Amino acid sequence: MDILIKGAIVITQDSKRRIVKHDILIRENKIEKVQEKIDEKAELVIDAKNRIAMPGLINMHTHVAMTLFRGYGEGLPLDRWLKEKIWPMEAKETGADAHVAAQLAMIEMIRSGTTAFNEMCLLGAKEIGKAAEEAGVRGHVCQGLFDLLPGRTIKGELAVMKDTAFPKSGLVSYGVGPHAVYTCSEELLRKSKEFAIKEKRKVHIHVSETRKEVFDTQKKTGKRTFEYLDSLGLVDSDSLFAHSSWVTKKEISLAGKKKLNIIHCPVSNLKLATGGICPVFEYDKSGANVCIGTDSVASNNSLNMFESMKLASLLQKHKYWKADIIPYSRILDFATRNGAQALGIDCGRIEQGALADIVLLKPGPNMTPMHDPVSNIIYAANPSNVTDVIINGRPVMVEGKIKTLDEGAVLARAQELSREIQAR
Amino acid sequence: MDILIKGAIVITQDSKRRIVKHDILIRENKIEKVQEKIDEKAELVIDAKNRIAMPGLINMHTHVAMTLFRGYGEGLPLDRWLKEKIWPMEAKETGADAHVAAQLAMIEMIRSGTTAFNEMCLLGAKEIGKAAEEAGVRGHVCQGLFDLLPGRTIKGELAVMKDTAFPKSGLVSYGVGPHAVYTCSEELLRKSKEFAIKEKRKVHIHVSETRKEVFDTQKKTGKRTFEYLDSLGLVDSDSLFAHSSWVTKKEISLAGKKKLNIIHCPVSNLKLATGGICPVFEYDKSGANVCIGTDSVASNNSLNMFESMKLASLLQKHKYWKADIIPYSRILDFATRNGAQALGIDCGRIEQGALADIVLLKPGPNMTPMHDPVSNIIYAANPSNVTDVIINGRPVMVEGKIKTLDEGAVLARAQELSREIQAR
Repeated sequence: MDILIKGAIVITQDSKRRIVKHDILIRENKIEKVQEKIDEKAELVIDAKNRIAMPGLINMHTHVAMTLFRGYGEGLPLDRWLKEKIWPMEAKETGADAHVAAQLAMIEMIRSGTTAFNEMCLLGAKEIGKAAEEAGVRGHVCQGLFDLLPGRTIKGELAVMKDTAFPKSGLVSYGVGPHAVYTCSEELLRKSKEFAIKEKRKVHIHVSETRKEVFDTQKKTGKRTFEYLDSLGLVDSDSLFAHSSWVTKKEISLAGKKKLNIIHCPVSNLKLATGGICPVFEYDKSGANVCIGTDSVASNNSLNMFESMKLASLLQKHKYWKADIIPYSRILDFATRNGAQALGIDCGRIEQGALADIVLLKPGPNMTPMHDPVSNIIYAANPSNVTDVIINGRPVMVEGKIKTLDEGAVLARAQELSREIQAR
Repeated sequence: MDILIKGAIVITQDSKRRIVKHDILIRENKIEKVQEKIDEKAELVIDAKNRIAMPGLINMHTHVAMTLFRGYGEGLPLDRWLKEKIWPMEAKETGADAHVAAQLAMIEMIRSGTTAFNEMCLLGAKEIGKAAEEAGVRGHVCQGLFDLLPGRTIKGELAVMKDTAFPKSGLVSYGVGPHAVYTCSEELLRKSKEFAIKEKRKVHIHVSETRKEVFDTQKKTGKRTFEYLDSLGLVDSDSLFAHSSWVTKKEISLAGKKKLNIIHCPVSNLKLATGGICPVFEYDKSGANVCIGTDSVASNNSLNMFESMKLASLLQKHKYWKADIIPYSRILDFATRNGAQALGIDCGRIEQGALADIVLLKPGPNMTPMHDPVSNIIYAANPSNVTDVIINGRPVMVEGKIKTLDEGAVLARAQELSREIQAR
């Protein structure tokens, strides 16, 4: 479908970060023109006067299959929460449940301006991919692998790894998800990466989320987490490193040298009281490719990237006791251009030739006045401002209405299913 | 107007914090009944099936006259931002401008579920009160007093204090606002409190926001900030203490003993990189009355209390490295019951006899499933969920439409005016 967006304030996120009042013409799945005035016919014409057009946000770390557990067992101490609530629920979840959970997540993501996500799932990679395709959301889905957990074996996990390396289908590609250094053996970590290289896939892994993880890794291997992973060959720009909070300056410098994709999840880190704040400022300065993720709703409890961008910005100010430590415009880069770079997808900017992943915002009272649209996006926007979402040239939300899924039916089914799983 | 709310999930915030599926009958400005089924006639009947009814949020520290400066001069270092941007703009603002700024703030607050606010303004107390009355929002407005600033005198500030001690009018009452220990002389602080006692007003003051303030106070007076204020007679439960972050255990114990109203502003503290995190957990345990505020949009940049509640909760987990340090239900108390107690208003709960300040939430995808409505309110809700707002028995927003002000006109005027002030 050809789409013409008229008269928007366009946050281009191009190499000059231009902000212009322009029309945008979308043909098939790409941006064909961004110009002051475009007088061409299109099947869908959106009057975007006084609205902001920005590249869709890219949520670089989440677990959408957990969306049915939002608020479940809330408030318990971490170990009881996991053992008594989350793990028993996860053990009862099926691939079909993950499909519903993912549909719910897709709707929440669209409504909060997210157009692409990077997933690690316990199960249901195929069903999650299916939900993303149905919703029209761009996805990178990785089945989590864990041979050090009870009942799991290296043989079994390697089989799972191969079985879930589905070919790219529509908007969804599949990666390799060795969970973390404390849940994967050295062999599994090494073989995951070898497989990923052979199959041209990305590795998605949790790294240095907690102090305990770093302590245990050092005790076991004599190395810090990134150094240990480096010794196994996993540390390169084709891997996606969630959290990466508890690190040394040497590891930050390694991340810069190798242009690592560092995924900061500020809300989840605070919610789980991991203590450390990811040194985003230093990573960015070092040359690493910093991205932002929400993590799952079990430790957030939302998939709202506006919130995660704001908190990412605030936490750096807090960490370094310096209000201007990182330009707020850089935070938008993390959530757009940098996410696109990490996934190797040509989106994250509104420019001729780029994939058409575009979000329109209507500035309500909370984005008025508009002294500075980027400041308003980072510090003042919320999902109530999102009116239209286009992904790969397809309008998935128009004037506040989800076009690709039956929202009411998905929400009702998700509510019902969350009770059913509990009762199993 | 009599209002009947049918079949809501009611977060009563009563003494037992009951959550019930009930009808709510409002007559005049009060809640007349909360019962399983109410079959009475009412002029407005709201079908609230599957919706949450909660007490309106109370924003206990803000500066609504600054709402026109949202994002203005964003990203500059703090001193340049104040000197080159904010102060020159404030110097050009008139009472009439403050009226528009306040109207904009009222709309933003209503849309984010806030039904009462506590203000400190540089000017325009009367106009801000007028905007609150027009919007139908409950307000406590305090003219800021500052005799240590250039061009100000104790005589002048005492005159301002008396001139702005307007009588209560409708939903708006007026307090006394000595700005802070570093902007007010000992005499002004003392006389503010004497006047407040005589006139039965509350004092609203900034305390221990930054380390520098504490250091300077100690150097000048030999006392910590709360101790210094105590020696001047300002420390009692009729005062409202914004920030209160950089304190000793002795000051926290004083706050508990005297049941002080401690107003935590988590977003603003991070945004201005004040470094310290208010020890909310310890204040609450000591017996102090902890409340939550957004501060102004100049240092936030929103008036969204859902965001401030979530961040208040997250920051305590982070500060104490303990995910269950404060029950999340307690955070809702801070933003409802405790705010009401601080202002001496009988709202903040949905119970027979209380003032009818009620917010309805429609759980979208971000509040689905509903394992736990309070968890969803604290960690997952955003302004897109707010559908209806009733204040003092008056519907100020119905099905997403503001009833008391012309929203489009206010937003357009605010945008225009923010440019006009710059150009003056």
